[in-house]
Amino acid sequence: MGKVNLQEKLSQFSDHWSPKIVGELNGQQVKLVKIKGEFVWHKHDHEDELFFVVKGSFKMEYRDRMVEVNENEFLIVHRGIEHRPVADKEASIMLFEPASTLNTGDTEGELTKHTLDKI
Amino acid sequence: MGKVNLQEKLSQFSDHWSPKIVGELNGQQVKLVKIKGEFVWHKHDHEDELFFVVKGSFKMEYRDRMVEVNENEFLIVHRGIEHRPVADKEASIMLFEPASTLNTGDTEGELTKHTLDKI
Repeated sequence: MGKVNLQEKLSQFSDHWSPKIVGELNGQQVKLVKIKGEFVWHKHDHEDELFFVVKGSFKMEYRDRMVEVNENEFLIVHRGIEHRPVADKEASIMLFEPASTLNTGDTEGELTKHTLDKI
Repeated sequence: MGKVNLQEKLSQFSDHWSPKIVGELNGQQVKLVKIKGEFVWHKHDHEDELFFVVKGSFKMEYRDRMVEVNENEFLIVHRGIEHRPVADKEASIMLFEPASTLNTGDTEGELTKHTLDKI
C-alpha cells in the first residue's frame, strides 16, 4: 500500500524495451519502461494500452500516420491497431495495460519479454 | 486515437473534487481532478484506485495512518480500504480506475458525482 516514486523506480534499471511492473490494480498493471530506437511492429488483439511519457518524447507509428508524444502527455492505442514506438533519444514511459499484455503482442521475437520483473 | 496533454486538459476546468474523463481503455477510465481541502471518508467495495500526482501534493488518510504523495508519485488504494484524500493547497491528480467507480464510493452525499464530463 506504499506510494511509488517514478524517479526512484527509474533509477533502478537502465535496459531498454524491458518493462518493469510497479503497480497492479483491477487486473491491470502499471509498468515503467525505458525505450530507445525502433521497436517491432505489432498489435494486441485483446488489450488496449496507455503510454504516458514521464521523461523525453517518442513517436508512435501507425501504418497510416505518426503521433509524437511528449512529457506529460499520454496516448491510448486500442486493441487490434498495429503500432510501433520509436524513440530517437532515450525516453521513459509509464504503461497502463491488462496484466495479460505481452510487450510485442502478436509479433514474438528477440524483444519479447515473457516474464517481467517487479521493482 | 489522439494524444492527451495533461496541462491542456487541466486548463479547461477549475472546480474541485469533480473528476473529468480524459481516456478510456479496458473498462477502465483515466480521469483528471483538482482537489483542495478535505474529501469524505469512503471506500470502494469492488474497485482499486490509482492516484497519480500531476501537480502539487496531497495526503491520503487511512484510519490508521497517512501517506503524503508528491509530484510524479502514485498511490494505489485497494478495494475495501477506507480512505480520505486531503490537500492543504490545490493539487492536480490523474486517476486510473474502473469505469464503474463512484467518486465517493459507499458514502453518497453532496460531493457525489453520478455523471462525469468527458473533456
